[in-house]
Amino acid sequence: MSEVGTLVLLRHGESEWNAKNLFTGWVDVDLSAQGEAEARRGGELLRESGLLPDVVHTSVLRRAIRTSEIALHAADRHWIPVQRSWRLNERHYGALQGKNKKQTLEEFGEEQFMLWRRSYDVPPPPIADDDEWSQAADPRYANLPPDIRPSTECLKDVVQRMLPYWYDQIVPQLLAGTTVLVAAHGNSLRALVKHLDGISDEAIAKLNIPTGIPLRYDLDAALRPVTAGGTYLDPEAAKEAAAAVANQGR
Amino acid sequence: MSEVGTLVLLRHGESEWNAKNLFTGWVDVDLSAQGEAEARRGGELLRESGLLPDVVHTSVLRRAIRTSEIALHAADRHWIPVQRSWRLNERHYGALQGKNKKQTLEEFGEEQFMLWRRSYDVPPPPIADDDEWSQAADPRYANLPPDIRPSTECLKDVVQRMLPYWYDQIVPQLLAGTTVLVAAHGNSLRALVKHLDGISDEAIAKLNIPTGIPLRYDLDAALRPVTAGGTYLDPEAAKEAAAAVANQGR
Repeated sequence: MSEVGTLVLLRHGESEWNAKNLFTGWVDVDLSAQGEAEARRGGELLRESGLLPDVVHTSVLRRAIRTSEIALHAADRHWIPVQRSWRLNERHYGALQGKNKKQTLEEFGEEQFMLWRRSYDVPPPPIADDDEWSQAADPRYANLPPDIRPSTECLKDVVQRMLPYWYDQIVPQLLAGTTVLVAAHGNSLRALVKHLDGISDEAIAKLNIPTGIPLRYDLDAALRPVTAGGTYLDPEAAKEAAAAVANQGR
Repeated sequence: MSEVGTLVLLRHGESEWNAKNLFTGWVDVDLSAQGEAEARRGGELLRESGLLPDVVHTSVLRRAIRTSEIALHAADRHWIPVQRSWRLNERHYGALQGKNKKQTLEEFGEEQFMLWRRSYDVPPPPIADDDEWSQAADPRYANLPPDIRPSTECLKDVVQRMLPYWYDQIVPQLLAGTTVLVAAHGNSLRALVKHLDGISDEAIAKLNIPTGIPLRYDLDAALRPVTAGGTYLDPEAAKEAAAAVANQGR
């Protein structure tokens, strides 16, 4: 074991729009009752394993924030310092936000659908500022100029806007020996895991991170994972959940 | 109106131990269902009045943290920056923590009971480190040396340990024009209001801050209240609630 702190990733559970099979992205939907239960279970796993965060980082989206709150209350770590950033947000899904996944698949066909969902560098069409699901007027992004605030993103874009936060905010805490919890989203966590594990642009397409199960990374002094891919606190449940996510939207 | 930011105080609602009539202090009990409803109502008042916090400060106690979380979700401001400090905690009730208020009144008599509850400078006896309701082994205070971490407090002690946080963390934000929400406790908020309104050591005994109703302070450039005592967002409910608090424990 190095003296570098421990990184713990937690993907939020089912949201109201997961349940409805809609593309969500930056739309600020809440957790479903099942998503709340997943967050509680995530917190219990932290507590049972004695993996107690010293600080938590979240996106500025409600489903990740509530996941962190519910999990930390369950782990009796509700009192730790909190940091939030839009750089940990889910991938912006552009004009697909608010659209039904099955209808989108039927309208655009399998090939285009999978390109938008899983290609590394092909973003969906941008969302118009006056679209009902645009964040152009959202006060939480008011300080971001239009060239910084995205109107669509591919996974490559997420890597690029997430990494400054990783290097500037999270890495210094890890180097100080802190146990850091990052409560975020499928694609912002895939972006981070791609960077940590050095996963290729092609191979990342097949990586699914299950929801609600803390993923532990012990890191060496160069911030390389001691165990590639990290370790889930509940490996059996993680295996089942990853398979379920892979079939989502089909 | 000055260009100084707006201060909003929010006292947490009923906790599990309020309902049981026990002295709580630093014991980390949760909100009751009624306390959760009070927090939601507090958040709705913020939203309805357009008084939208830019940053929130809480104690490190669950009942204030959950009040802030529930209120901010209700006000759609769950994404703002969060800061927490033990300096915003409830008064430490010393050896009275975990004791029934009615039994304490009967055991020690009206005079001693009221001295502990309402005098400015008479703390209850200190709690022993091995008492089941002591915080001596609580990890959230592990960095505080014994001469800083209290084992009992009077209101004067709360003023003294709260003011450094006020001056160092909150005042600079107000001077920058920020709307600041402080979600805290009966006595840490009484300590702050005593300081803001220049209330005497004697007169503060009679001041009760109702739970769950945001209290707005507009401040001039010298950080003096524009309206003495601030303004409750629901003045009628505040009047009724203050009367109820005054009778608490009797």
